[in-house]
Amino acid sequence: MIRRVYLDNNATTPALPEVFAAMRPYFEEYFGNASSIHHHGQRTRQAVERARESVAALLGCRAAEVVFTSGGTEADNLAIFGLVRSGDHIITSAIEHHAVLNACEHASKMLGCEYTCVPVDGSGRIDPEEVRRTLRPNTKLITIMMANNETGVLQPVEEIGKIAAEADVYFHTDAVQAAGKVPINVQRIGCDLLSISGHKIHGPQGTGALYVRKGTQLQPMMFGGRHERSRRAGTENVAGIVGLGMAAEQASAGFERGDAARLASLRDRLEQTVLREVDATSVNGGQAPRVPNTTNICFDYIEGEALVIALDLKGLSISSGSACSSGAIEPSHVLTAMGLAPERARCGIRFSLGKQNTAEDIDIALRLIPETVARLRELSPVYNKKIAVNS
Amino acid sequence: MIRRVYLDNNATTPALPEVFAAMRPYFEEYFGNASSIHHHGQRTRQAVERARESVAALLGCRAAEVVFTSGGTEADNLAIFGLVRSGDHIITSAIEHHAVLNACEHASKMLGCEYTCVPVDGSGRIDPEEVRRTLRPNTKLITIMMANNETGVLQPVEEIGKIAAEADVYFHTDAVQAAGKVPINVQRIGCDLLSISGHKIHGPQGTGALYVRKGTQLQPMMFGGRHERSRRAGTENVAGIVGLGMAAEQASAGFERGDAARLASLRDRLEQTVLREVDATSVNGGQAPRVPNTTNICFDYIEGEALVIALDLKGLSISSGSACSSGAIEPSHVLTAMGLAPERARCGIRFSLGKQNTAEDIDIALRLIPETVARLRELSPVYNKKIAVNS
Repeated sequence: MIRRVYLDNNATTPALPEVFAAMRPYFEEYFGNASSIHHHGQRTRQAVERARESVAALLGCRAAEVVFTSGGTEADNLAIFGLVRSGDHIITSAIEHHAVLNACEHASKMLGCEYTCVPVDGSGRIDPEEVRRTLRPNTKLITIMMANNETGVLQPVEEIGKIAAEADVYFHTDAVQAAGKVPINVQRIGCDLLSISGHKIHGPQGTGALYVRKGTQLQPMMFGGRHERSRRAGTENVAGIVGLGMAAEQASAGFERGDAARLASLRDRLEQTVLREVDATSVNGGQAPRVPNTTNICFDYIEGEALVIALDLKGLSISSGSACSSGAIEPSHVLTAMGLAPERARCGIRFSLGKQNTAEDIDIALRLIPETVARLRELSPVYNKKIAVNS
Repeated sequence: MIRRVYLDNNATTPALPEVFAAMRPYFEEYFGNASSIHHHGQRTRQAVERARESVAALLGCRAAEVVFTSGGTEADNLAIFGLVRSGDHIITSAIEHHAVLNACEHASKMLGCEYTCVPVDGSGRIDPEEVRRTLRPNTKLITIMMANNETGVLQPVEEIGKIAAEADVYFHTDAVQAAGKVPINVQRIGCDLLSISGHKIHGPQGTGALYVRKGTQLQPMMFGGRHERSRRAGTENVAGIVGLGMAAEQASAGFERGDAARLASLRDRLEQTVLREVDATSVNGGQAPRVPNTTNICFDYIEGEALVIALDLKGLSISSGSACSSGAIEPSHVLTAMGLAPERARCGIRFSLGKQNTAEDIDIALRLIPETVARLRELSPVYNKKIAVNS
């Protein structure tokens, strides 16, 4: 049996043993509806509120400002639909996750809003001044991600937060791919809303949270019971929330332990070795500040998806673009926004590391990548023509 | 340590051992994003689709007609907001769960819809002819629950389904409290949409499903990736979905095993013994067909919440009304709709059994209830006056 290596942690991460251990009692033993007033309910209510404290500690906010959701997509959608109304203008960016872009598109088509996507430069960064120039009198919300899911590029959210504050406009940041990788502090960012997802930080799938600054008038997206202080109806997913809370605790502890430096060192070795050993490769977003776990590499003359499949057969799980867009015919909207032609954008491969990855995983990946790329290029008429011309 | 007895299974149920066992590998070992094209993704995709088959088998529909959600509330909200537009009329009932009632209220306040609540009779049943009389030319949707969460009363959904079909109006039924307790067949009901919740059928919290009849034009509520055939964006909660699938399988198997008859026999013994041994008691909805696990009993002259707390201290978990409305000051909207005066509606207590309950649980409950009721009534001036008058 081959030893499988998983370098697709921006798609999803395995739950940490601590996360699973924390969740486990809440399925059969400590079950209960957190809204019930009896013993079973009280015990689960306490667990939910402890988890809320852990998430608040990770984000630098108050527990009461944390709304639990079913994931990052719901958090993003709640931030947008919770605020905008007909006639409002939204500023977002060309490289947002589809949870933001498609929510803005729906707000534009169905709710009578308008939205503007600010561009990025060749390194994948948004210019805060471009955000300022895009402001209109009816701008209600700026929603710009903290770290991009495909390239890992960090956006200047603190500068954007200042611009939003000056203009008295709400600022939401999708921090799904930043959480657990770089420290987050909502006060420093100056955001009113911030989304995270459990399964991107070694917590359970189906969990997420939206930070909602105290005093923000947010309309719910789902109606029913008075859960989450009437901001999100639906019986709390106690085990999931407990898992998310433990993942947040572990993420906070990870910063103390130096997890980020360890991942950056593994990522840098992977990236630099690939660039050195495989010709016609380049890093997308390599000139910009990035989260420590991600690298996006163009292997010219190869279809990214072909490389994903070929490496999968050899035991390496990676991805071309985001999992949420898998099977899409279009090239990555992130890479094309950075100025890559569609045919080059199709050559992009994302490697994303997680806490479980080891130096041996990188060794294996580095053994598999050059030989697989070489074999695929042997089959590429374009690559062979280029070789013939150069030699 | 006291042996705790849990008779609040309509609030939430413990996950079955089979459910937890099925979910377990998907946290750490078989983790993956079900949209990823590599091995990790494919394995989880298969697990999700197997679970979809299991849910479809429970509901009597095709797998492609099952949309996974974060729970019953989301399923109800998706059914309503997915269909209605400004100017549409909705027919619902006075005894729906707040996930339906508050969604209708929001549609009326914010989206320019209208809605009508049909009443129930003294037994808690809706008259299908009343639904027919309430139809208007602009009626777009009838949403009436299959079984009530507080009384367990089954509604005439098949008759309502026929009326909806004749009128060419969409029919949604909230089957959250019916699923796993009575057989469900969407063809026989004739509904276009049907909601279930995982944690009400011994599956995990944070999971649910909406049956959407093939061809139904449903607008999503959340936008992002193309998950669930573009009907519900957000990375699939694989472990949760696997747990829901196993809970559905176990529910189907339970019908074969005769679980319903066993629960009905325990419930009937509880109910009949209480009625016999405790004076001034009556069953709400006792004259109507009910799910086998639920009884709602009025203990006159006692505040339901006081009895819940007193019995909780002795180790029995029950509830007054629904968990989602706990802490609400208003008396149950279900019992008042059945004609109970507010002060009598406040005396209602819901006992709801689950697969884990045993005859011993009922013995314990029957030992605790009469003595606790007697003690609380000793403190009740109204009750003592009544005794004095009668003696």
